[in-house]
Amino acid sequence: MTSETRAAVPAEQQAREAEITRQVLDSFGDCTDPRLREVLKSLVRHLHAFVREVRLTEDEWSKGIDFLTRAGHITHDRRQEFILLSDVLGASMQTVAVNNQAYGDATEATVFGPFFVEENPEIENGGDIAFGAAGEPCWVEGTVTDSTGKPVPGARIEVWEADEDGFYDTQYGDDRTAARAHLFTGADGGYRFWGLTPTPYPIPHDGPVGELLAATGRSPMRASHLHFMVSAPGLRTLVTHIFVKGDELLDHDAVFGVKESLVKEFRRQRPDTPAPDGRDLEGRAWSRVGFDIVLAPDGA
Amino acid sequence: MTSETRAAVPAEQQAREAEITRQVLDSFGDCTDPRLREVLKSLVRHLHAFVREVRLTEDEWSKGIDFLTRAGHITHDRRQEFILLSDVLGASMQTVAVNNQAYGDATEATVFGPFFVEENPEIENGGDIAFGAAGEPCWVEGTVTDSTGKPVPGARIEVWEADEDGFYDTQYGDDRTAARAHLFTGADGGYRFWGLTPTPYPIPHDGPVGELLAATGRSPMRASHLHFMVSAPGLRTLVTHIFVKGDELLDHDAVFGVKESLVKEFRRQRPDTPAPDGRDLEGRAWSRVGFDIVLAPDGA
Repeated sequence: MTSETRAAVPAEQQAREAEITRQVLDSFGDCTDPRLREVLKSLVRHLHAFVREVRLTEDEWSKGIDFLTRAGHITHDRRQEFILLSDVLGASMQTVAVNNQAYGDATEATVFGPFFVEENPEIENGGDIAFGAAGEPCWVEGTVTDSTGKPVPGARIEVWEADEDGFYDTQYGDDRTAARAHLFTGADGGYRFWGLTPTPYPIPHDGPVGELLAATGRSPMRASHLHFMVSAPGLRTLVTHIFVKGDELLDHDAVFGVKESLVKEFRRQRPDTPAPDGRDLEGRAWSRVGFDIVLAPDGA
Repeated sequence: MTSETRAAVPAEQQAREAEITRQVLDSFGDCTDPRLREVLKSLVRHLHAFVREVRLTEDEWSKGIDFLTRAGHITHDRRQEFILLSDVLGASMQTVAVNNQAYGDATEATVFGPFFVEENPEIENGGDIAFGAAGEPCWVEGTVTDSTGKPVPGARIEVWEADEDGFYDTQYGDDRTAARAHLFTGADGGYRFWGLTPTPYPIPHDGPVGELLAATGRSPMRASHLHFMVSAPGLRTLVTHIFVKGDELLDHDAVFGVKESLVKEFRRQRPDTPAPDGRDLEGRAWSRVGFDIVLAPDGA
């Protein structure tokens, strides 16, 4: 709200509004969990300030209740509208930023997204995560080190991505598991696997979050990317993506996930270029990308 | 967050966090609806400030997503967990305050709550809203005037309340309609009806909002009350309650709805006291209360 609008609210009215906030903050006085109290009091202060600042109408309040209700009803174990909402409002990236302060040259984190699945197949180092998902093969390789440059053997790497039609396996409504897996780095900290060359896709936009994007003239498209989650004892778990250099969506990612340091060159290879592991690519073009990962110390 | 904690965030990190907020605010640049843009930008600013201020952990973020998901799943057409959430965080009362600025001696507004039903029976002036709901009969009467003191004939009055067991009809899971109705003021602005003497009750607390209250040491109890919604052409629609003088919950209402001006004396009557309309009360005790209603001008 402009200072002009604010000035139009009489002091007596401002005092009445402030009094409501005070009452609510006081109601947490008996909360014995100091962290919960801190979080809720801050939430209440900001929520009330928002209502006052925009002079939220009762009709707008009802629309907000209806929005949350519909978000709840479209959410099920394979569709998470509240994560999408957090993502498109940038709350996810703000949380990522707060929890992943820069540490030396540690690899930057980005949004987790709603498509991770806890249970996913293990592959050998050098294996293929596609499990039948359609797309151009992509050879991904790199090394996991700590921030002193020491290789991290046995680091667990989870990878997941959309297929060439822009869908994750969980979006097909059957029980397929595809384009997701986990593997472990070797003794030298190295890892390699076959994935799919990432392609752009829209976040699910047939629900209230999609309506919100449409109403505000925003695109639901995400820049092409491949998800990583990397963990090892004593090191900070890294949740990140790599993005495709040259993708025109890099500056318009629907969830604000792009960071310069995560944009990688995916080098296109002709069908007759021999694969690094000697695999027969059956006449298809393929790509390759390198991604060296540096993990910050735990608690950094 | 204390200023001490805030000071511990390095300036470079603060700049990175502020940059995310800037990107999200910029993303609404193409929104052609200026009001929607204003509301969403304010929401984003406060949401991000909250995340930064409490240094929200990723685990806490996940708990928030889970909370909203469970609130969505427990909500159906007769159970509204998001309204309860808004109510217990005082966001509902803050919205009521913003939309019902004091106007002369106009009757004060309070929370709408989740139990109003659009379709409800009409009764004659002087009729009974109980329709079988259990409770002590209560004679309610008063006059509706505008803020110049002029009576308002034909004002629509919606009333609804819990029964003596603390439940609204919608909470029984059958299709009953009870303890709710609407009526119209007479030519002199007067109204009167039989309701039930209000009793205290807990808001539904078997869901995530109930867990939140329990975790923070707050009671789910609401002070005893009777709901009113009063509307007439050219006048501001009033959504309010009357509360029972002497109720020990007046200072601890779970949704912060109590206002001094809305606390009324419900005078208990002995079974042998004749009813104002000559009704045979079949040997039961009853009560009576007066509530004169003043409506502000529309748009005030």
